[in-house]
Amino acid sequence: MIIPETQLRRFTQNVFMAMGCSHEHAVLAADVLLKSDLRGIDSHGVARLSGYVRLWEKRRINPTPDIKIVHETATTATIDGDAGLGLVVAPFAMQVAIEKAKTYGSGWVSVRNSNHFGIAGYHALKAVEQDMIGFGMTNASPLVAPTFSNERLLGTNPMCYAFPAGNYPPVIVDMATSAAANGKLEIAQRSGKQVPEGWIQNGQGNATTDPHALKSGGSLLPLGSDREHGSHKGFGLSATVDILSGVLSGAGFGPWVPPFVSFLEPPVNPPGQGIGHFLGAMRVDGFRPAEAFKKDMDIWIERFKGASTIHPDQKVIIPGEPELEAELDRMQNGFPLVDAVVKDLQELAAKLGVETL
Amino acid sequence: MIIPETQLRRFTQNVFMAMGCSHEHAVLAADVLLKSDLRGIDSHGVARLSGYVRLWEKRRINPTPDIKIVHETATTATIDGDAGLGLVVAPFAMQVAIEKAKTYGSGWVSVRNSNHFGIAGYHALKAVEQDMIGFGMTNASPLVAPTFSNERLLGTNPMCYAFPAGNYPPVIVDMATSAAANGKLEIAQRSGKQVPEGWIQNGQGNATTDPHALKSGGSLLPLGSDREHGSHKGFGLSATVDILSGVLSGAGFGPWVPPFVSFLEPPVNPPGQGIGHFLGAMRVDGFRPAEAFKKDMDIWIERFKGASTIHPDQKVIIPGEPELEAELDRMQNGFPLVDAVVKDLQELAAKLGVETL
Repeated sequence: MIIPETQLRRFTQNVFMAMGCSHEHAVLAADVLLKSDLRGIDSHGVARLSGYVRLWEKRRINPTPDIKIVHETATTATIDGDAGLGLVVAPFAMQVAIEKAKTYGSGWVSVRNSNHFGIAGYHALKAVEQDMIGFGMTNASPLVAPTFSNERLLGTNPMCYAFPAGNYPPVIVDMATSAAANGKLEIAQRSGKQVPEGWIQNGQGNATTDPHALKSGGSLLPLGSDREHGSHKGFGLSATVDILSGVLSGAGFGPWVPPFVSFLEPPVNPPGQGIGHFLGAMRVDGFRPAEAFKKDMDIWIERFKGASTIHPDQKVIIPGEPELEAELDRMQNGFPLVDAVVKDLQELAAKLGVETL
Repeated sequence: MIIPETQLRRFTQNVFMAMGCSHEHAVLAADVLLKSDLRGIDSHGVARLSGYVRLWEKRRINPTPDIKIVHETATTATIDGDAGLGLVVAPFAMQVAIEKAKTYGSGWVSVRNSNHFGIAGYHALKAVEQDMIGFGMTNASPLVAPTFSNERLLGTNPMCYAFPAGNYPPVIVDMATSAAANGKLEIAQRSGKQVPEGWIQNGQGNATTDPHALKSGGSLLPLGSDREHGSHKGFGLSATVDILSGVLSGAGFGPWVPPFVSFLEPPVNPPGQGIGHFLGAMRVDGFRPAEAFKKDMDIWIERFKGASTIHPDQKVIIPGEPELEAELDRMQNGFPLVDAVVKDLQELAAKLGVETL
């Protein structure tokens, strides 16, 4: 089913308002979710809307948070999200980082007591719009085992680095630090297909290609898949995200990050509050004139786009290119939602008394 | 052959002084190189000493550089290394980052016109000593092909994140963004062994296990090894390092990073100067009291060290643990140098007229 952008946006705003969000917060939260669908990352868009609502029903999301800076220096800050939607807490935090960068060259904000913030790229792109380099990361509920372990201790903990360019679109590296994102596993589960070896292990820590292994004690593997191919590096990157987002802010970390799904209870006596994020912005012209940087970014992009290819029909993909292609397509042609998602959204509308899609 | 630490240090200092370095620079450069050998990263230590000398002989390393800040804001700076040793340029840059962080909470320095800076961990650890979080990365001469390409366009481009802890040693993630570091390939080449599939490809871009494939047009693969296992993520990380180190500073980037080996000529008409680095420091107490952070770091470390294991004899390794073990051992027991390296160093001594090892 194809839904036009304006219709899906209005619907999503109405759902957030039915949760008790202010109009301003509902508009913002819908913007973050729709950006994910626009960019083709369907797992992080409106498909998650009913998940946010269920967390709100369990009183684990506060629709009217008092988001506060609790600690700061000229270029650093820690923000308490007051259990609000990460979709509004993270944009607040990124704005703080950008304002600090305007004055001092860079700004860095860690966030505690938040919830799922959508795609990291949304937040990092806010910096790019100001000719800044954007950084965004978040920890997430544990699904990934460290190298040599069969215990889920880390989330898919994404990191995003975004760079403005000149004549080309920005370069946006936005990636889960696991070998495969959980969304890809869910697609395989629904379609009944096996997944490649190196994505997951079973409860005993043995290699498996069964996408359902995660539901019986298995875990996702870090980027690199196994020790020989560098899974300790994926583990190290995921640890970095967890420490910057969780330990540095006073949020939950490791196995104590609260689950997104409402049917799992949050961990008892966690060492910190909620989910943590880490956001940053650096002014390009804090290092060199922005025009000179962008000119060289264009040279970088052209050189990599023009790289010699292994197969004549498969060119090198610049990070961020596929997402932009999806965005241009969906902005014009609407959002292709799968039936299960549409059904889920219509049930949500009925439950909350908002206009159906 | 086992060489005591003081002897190897004095020898290394003497070599740098014979190149014309000041006593202060020679002491510093030797400290960076020896730290690599101490930490068990033999590929980046004194084994490279004759390589630096050969670059100096070709006048591609300036032993008396005028290292200068060429652009700055309160928390950002770009440094021109004047073609000096990265082993002295990068410590200068990290000191600038640390001083900015002391005043403003964070400091970020990009460096151009430099050379190989040793191990990223050395520089990031300087921040940790000040209760700061340390960042260090550098681009390097092209050996790695982007996903879908058979062309070497990126270095092994390492990134390092270092975090202070309380009762435990710091957590140090210091990793090449390729599936395997070049040093591991060199070990396989010397021993005549095959390497695992997923480390390299041949000149046509086909999988190979021949460690010599790199010498006949092959390339290293990004972390993730192939598209299905996330090589586009390794490519994205390597691109991030290249852009922050090279494009942001005005250094060479991509295929224009000058080679470390003196028998390969630097690229003609590069878009920037020399090798680039990116170094950063953030005060932990810019976010929360350092003691609270360190207490939580200890909880993090204990939880991961105590994780359930797949094999009873293989515990989870905290990033930085193996390097610290090597350091404690070698500090006490000396450096085990392979015969080829000892021979290389004795020839160097004879050539430069310094006391032999």
